[in-house]
Amino acid sequence: MREVLAEAAFQLFMERGFEGTTVDDIVARAGVGRRSFFRYFPSKEDAVFPDHERCLAEMTAFLESGGIRDGGDPVDAVCEAARIVLRMYAANPEFSVQRYRLTREVPGLRTYELSVVRRYERTLAGYLRRRYGAQRDGALRAEVIAAAVVAAHNNGLRSWLRSGGEGDAEAAVDHALGLVREVWGRPAQASGDAAVLTPAPGLGDGDGEVIVMVASRNAPLWRVVQRLESALAESPALK
Amino acid sequence: MREVLAEAAFQLFMERGFEGTTVDDIVARAGVGRRSFFRYFPSKEDAVFPDHERCLAEMTAFLESGGIRDGGDPVDAVCEAARIVLRMYAANPEFSVQRYRLTREVPGLRTYELSVVRRYERTLAGYLRRRYGAQRDGALRAEVIAAAVVAAHNNGLRSWLRSGGEGDAEAAVDHALGLVREVWGRPAQASGDAAVLTPAPGLGDGDGEVIVMVASRNAPLWRVVQRLESALAESPALK
Repeated sequence: MREVLAEAAFQLFMERGFEGTTVDDIVARAGVGRRSFFRYFPSKEDAVFPDHERCLAEMTAFLESGGIRDGGDPVDAVCEAARIVLRMYAANPEFSVQRYRLTREVPGLRTYELSVVRRYERTLAGYLRRRYGAQRDGALRAEVIAAAVVAAHNNGLRSWLRSGGEGDAEAAVDHALGLVREVWGRPAQASGDAAVLTPAPGLGDGDGEVIVMVASRNAPLWRVVQRLESALAESPALK
Repeated sequence: MREVLAEAAFQLFMERGFEGTTVDDIVARAGVGRRSFFRYFPSKEDAVFPDHERCLAEMTAFLESGGIRDGGDPVDAVCEAARIVLRMYAANPEFSVQRYRLTREVPGLRTYELSVVRRYERTLAGYLRRRYGAQRDGALRAEVIAAAVVAAHNNGLRSWLRSGGEGDAEAAVDHALGLVREVWGRPAQASGDAAVLTPAPGLGDGDGEVIVMVASRNAPLWRVVQRLESALAESPALK
């Protein structure tokens, strides 16, 4: 019933526009009574985004079950949680692309979408706040990272939608989330030639510890970075 | 006239609630005709936030005039632009705190506020996109940083509002923006801490040149990598 109503609503929005379609039109097309509509959707806007509630619930469940794994990087967990949203869009490219175009044209839908996006952001921030606990600036960090994850996700998603749903949506979003993980993610464990030393007068910018590292010029950059990361991870004062 | 209407509106919202106040009530209190209201405010919601349009215009003008200075760090410029919003709130603590409480209670106002925040975010992202130009992932970086700046600004602003407007609003927001600048800002010392040396017996894995680098332990990893990359780029045998 819910799917029938959402499908009838969307057909009509495409045919007559969002403003030009009433709830009465939708229930007539779906062949049900008016009260049925409001049993499933609080408003006409909700019928345009029928899957966000389920998706929010899935995201919440994923994060409450511990994210990726206990003790894993919280930033990895929220990136993985954001992918749940992407998969919802990618599961039905044609519908997603048409809805994207419709949303661009209807201010009320854009506003609705902003509220939904904000709820995802708050869900991610809430998880990060719990993970960061009493860390200094934990709440601030949680909110900034959640906003960055949402912005990156939406950048990848939008470029896929703008392309008409061509190409690999997951790859576009993974690439965008990569920027956030690169900046905010926890360094991976590895072994290597870098060390964190304290103190080193005259080196660095004078605020305490410095990294001193030696690596082969021929080593790939990622391996050099890995060594650096591992040195940072081994340092007692983890960032 | 605009100020008189906004003040009458806000008094009534405080007395009767937002939903319990009509535009007719507002114009009666202000002693003007109904059409005057809509000359200044498209909707009742707009009267709750009478300064955002001016503030958006000021932000746009600041960024179009080149931000802080030509060639300056784009991240510094958007942080400075965000402070324009903060100063609008801080100029009138009592009004800002009351409005914050009102907004918490009225879903329609929260939605309106989300739209305003989104416009600030788009303004900041647009500026960063222009500054990053054709850089790889410039648009992505612009959107992620704009979202991070807005989230940090709002974290500082909200903690000040929640405290009832006590304390130093600018200091709270500066502290929050500091996290974004630390992670995304341009390094103060752009070059010089990493070098590629030839030869260095006993160091590296024996295949010739080695990288020796020293960086502040407090520098974000990506900035350390940037230094490494710049050292590699200066080396004649480019990777």
